[in-house]
Amino acid sequence: MKPLDPREFLDLDPGERLLMGPGPSNVPARVLQALAAPCIGHLDPVFLAVMNETQRLLRHLFQTQNALTIPVSATGSAGMEACLVNLVEPGDEVLVAVNGVFGTRMGDIVQRIGGRLLRVDVPWGRAVDPAAVAEALRGRAPRIVAVVHAETSTGACTPLEELARIAHEAGALFLVDCVTSLGGMEVAVDRLGIDAAYSGTQKCLSCPPGLAPLTFSPAAVARLEARRHPVVSWYLDLGMVRDYWGNERKYHHTAPVNMIWALREALRLIAEEGLEARFARHRLNHRALVAGLEAMGLEMLVPEAERLPMLNAVRIPEGVAEAKIRRALLEDYGIEIGAGLGPLAGKIWRIGLMGHSCRPKNVLLLLSALSVLLRSEGFRLRGDALEAARAVYAAA
Amino acid sequence: MKPLDPREFLDLDPGERLLMGPGPSNVPARVLQALAAPCIGHLDPVFLAVMNETQRLLRHLFQTQNALTIPVSATGSAGMEACLVNLVEPGDEVLVAVNGVFGTRMGDIVQRIGGRLLRVDVPWGRAVDPAAVAEALRGRAPRIVAVVHAETSTGACTPLEELARIAHEAGALFLVDCVTSLGGMEVAVDRLGIDAAYSGTQKCLSCPPGLAPLTFSPAAVARLEARRHPVVSWYLDLGMVRDYWGNERKYHHTAPVNMIWALREALRLIAEEGLEARFARHRLNHRALVAGLEAMGLEMLVPEAERLPMLNAVRIPEGVAEAKIRRALLEDYGIEIGAGLGPLAGKIWRIGLMGHSCRPKNVLLLLSALSVLLRSEGFRLRGDALEAARAVYAAA
Repeated sequence: MKPLDPREFLDLDPGERLLMGPGPSNVPARVLQALAAPCIGHLDPVFLAVMNETQRLLRHLFQTQNALTIPVSATGSAGMEACLVNLVEPGDEVLVAVNGVFGTRMGDIVQRIGGRLLRVDVPWGRAVDPAAVAEALRGRAPRIVAVVHAETSTGACTPLEELARIAHEAGALFLVDCVTSLGGMEVAVDRLGIDAAYSGTQKCLSCPPGLAPLTFSPAAVARLEARRHPVVSWYLDLGMVRDYWGNERKYHHTAPVNMIWALREALRLIAEEGLEARFARHRLNHRALVAGLEAMGLEMLVPEAERLPMLNAVRIPEGVAEAKIRRALLEDYGIEIGAGLGPLAGKIWRIGLMGHSCRPKNVLLLLSALSVLLRSEGFRLRGDALEAARAVYAAA
Repeated sequence: MKPLDPREFLDLDPGERLLMGPGPSNVPARVLQALAAPCIGHLDPVFLAVMNETQRLLRHLFQTQNALTIPVSATGSAGMEACLVNLVEPGDEVLVAVNGVFGTRMGDIVQRIGGRLLRVDVPWGRAVDPAAVAEALRGRAPRIVAVVHAETSTGACTPLEELARIAHEAGALFLVDCVTSLGGMEVAVDRLGIDAAYSGTQKCLSCPPGLAPLTFSPAAVARLEARRHPVVSWYLDLGMVRDYWGNERKYHHTAPVNMIWALREALRLIAEEGLEARFARHRLNHRALVAGLEAMGLEMLVPEAERLPMLNAVRIPEGVAEAKIRRALLEDYGIEIGAGLGPLAGKIWRIGLMGHSCRPKNVLLLLSALSVLLRSEGFRLRGDALEAARAVYAAA
C-alpha cells in the first residue's frame, strides 16, 4: 500500500449554509454544543437517565402516552424500515397510499420483506383522498394502512384523522410517516389514532441527521408480540431494542450516545418554545414565503388547502435554468434549496422552512436572492416579493 | 395531554468518564470539535468532498484498494447486518465460527434472512482453530465463511490469514467482523484476502458510536451484483448506498453529516499517528496491563498467544463481589470497565484499551484503583501491580 500523507487532509472547515432545502435544517448552537459533550458508556447510569428524559420529551412531541417511544439508531429511512419490518409478516397485505417518493419507498420495503402490496396511487403534489383509500379497502382486510403525512418530495400534506378511522374500521393498523411534519405541525398520535409513526431528526427538529424517532401504540406492540416469524432485521428488531430502552436495560447494540445528547437538546428547545407556538411560527413563515413567491409570479405545485408549511414546492418558470439558479443561491448566497425528485426533477424547487431555519429573516433573504437571480435570467417579475411577504408579517 | 414543564430538563452535563470498557472509548477533543462543526446539506459539494476524503482515510485504515469502502449510517451491529443481507441470499449456506456473543449474533442474522447456518462452535475465550473450520468445510461449499477477528465478549483474537485461504479454497467469500480490532491492530484487508469486513467507530477509532465502516472486495461486489433476490433491507442495500457514495451521488438516505465530520477527524488522527505506531502502542499498554493484573494474582481468561491487545478479559477471583467493584470504579474513580456477557456474566471483567483510552497513565490508574478495591474486598494481592506494569514500560 502506498503510504498516505496526513498533511493532505486539512482541518475541517465546512463553512456555513442557510439550509432551506428538504433537510437537514440549520442546527442551533445549543444542539451542536450538546452534541460535543463528552461521550460516556451506553450503560452508564448518567446515560440511562438521559435516555429516560429523551423518551419523555419525545412522547410530548408525538403527543402520546405510548411506552414504546424511542429514537431508532439510524436515519429517518431506517425508521420507516423499522416500522414495516416489525409490523409486517410474510404474506401480510399492506395498503400504501403513494403520492411521492416516500410512499413509493414504503411500497418497495413492503415487497422486499414479503408483504403483499396494495398500492393506492395519488397524483404527485396532491394529498391522499380518504375516499380513494376507502374504495381500495372495499372487500379487503389489509393488516396495515400506511400514508405519508408530509410528502417531502412534493410538499403535499395528507390529513390523518379520517384515514385513521377508515383504517381501523377495516381492522388495520394505521402507520404514518411524519419525517418532515414532526416538530413543525401537529402529529397528535393518541388523539388521531395513529398506531405507528416514525420521523427523522434533521427536519423540523433541527438536530443533525442520524436518529429516527418512532412510536408504537399498544395495538402495534400487541402485533409485534404476536408475530409468528422473527423480524427479518436483527438491528431494527424492536422486541430487543425495547428491552434496552425499557427497564431491563438489556444490551442490544451500542446507542449513538452523542446523537442522543443532541436530540435531547433539540427536544428541550421545542418544549421551551411550546408546540402551539412552534406550529404557528411554521404556518406564518410559510404564508409569507408563498405570498412572496406568488407576488413574483411563481406558482406553487400543491393546491392551497393541501400545502405543508415546512416544505414549499414551487414550479420552475418556463425557460429558467433551474440548476444554475440553485447553484448561484448556494455559491453566491450560501443558501441551499432542494431540486425536484423523480418525475418532478427539473420542474420544481423545494424550499424548506424547517425548525430553526424557519424564520422571517430567512424568508426575506431567500425572496430577495431569488428575485435578483430570476431577473438576471430574464424572468419578468410580476410584483414585489418582499412587500408581499412583509404584509403577511405585518398583518399577523 | 398533560403539559410538560421544560424546566424539569436541566442543561446537559454528563460529566466525564475514563472509558476502559468494551466501548465506547474516550473521544479526543479534536473529534468532539469536528462533531460540532456546522451541519450542511448531504448533497452539498463541500460535504461530497469530505465524503471522498473519508473514504480515502478508511481505505488507508483497512489497508485496501476496495472502491466500495464506506461508513454505513448506523452502529457496528448494522455493519454486520449490512454485510450479511447483501451477500447472503435465501437458501445460501453460511459457515459462521462462533466463539462469543458476536459470532452468535452473525448466526442469528443468517437465519433471520433465510440463510442455512453451518455453525462451528469454539469454546468462549479461545481463538477459532483453522483446522476445525477446514474439517467443517469437508464436502461442503458454503457461500461465505465468517469469523470475528476480535471477540469483544471474550478478548480472543482469531488470526485471519489461514482462514482466508481455507475459505477461498472452498469457494467461499471470507467475511470478518473487525469491530473491535480496526484501528488497534492490523486489519490488512487486501493482503490477507478479506472479502468483506465491517467495524464500529466507538472502539479503537475513538469516535462516538453511530457509524459502521465497511469494505467489500471486488469479489464481494460481484456477488452483490449477481444477486437473484432483492436485498431484504432497503436501508442497508449497498447497491443503492454505493450510488450515493460513488460518482453518481444519487440520493438514497440522508447521511449523518456531523458523524461523518467526527469520523474524518478520528481517521485523520490515526493517519497522523501512523498505523504501525498505533498498533505498537496498543500492544505495549496491553502487556503492561496484563503484567500488572497477573502480578496482583489475577488470571486472564484467554491463553497468552490468543489475546487481543485492546480487550482484556480477566477472571474474577473467588468470593469477590464483581458488580460492587465495577460500581466503585465508576462512582469513586469515574472509570468504566465492562462486565461479562452471557455464560461469562459474573465470571470476568472486560478491560478495554482502545484508541485514545489506551495509554500508560490509564493503565496505571486502573491498576491502582483495582488494587485498592480488591484489597478492601478481602482479596490478598500477590504482588505489586504498578511495579510490574512500570517494568514493562521501562523495558520498552
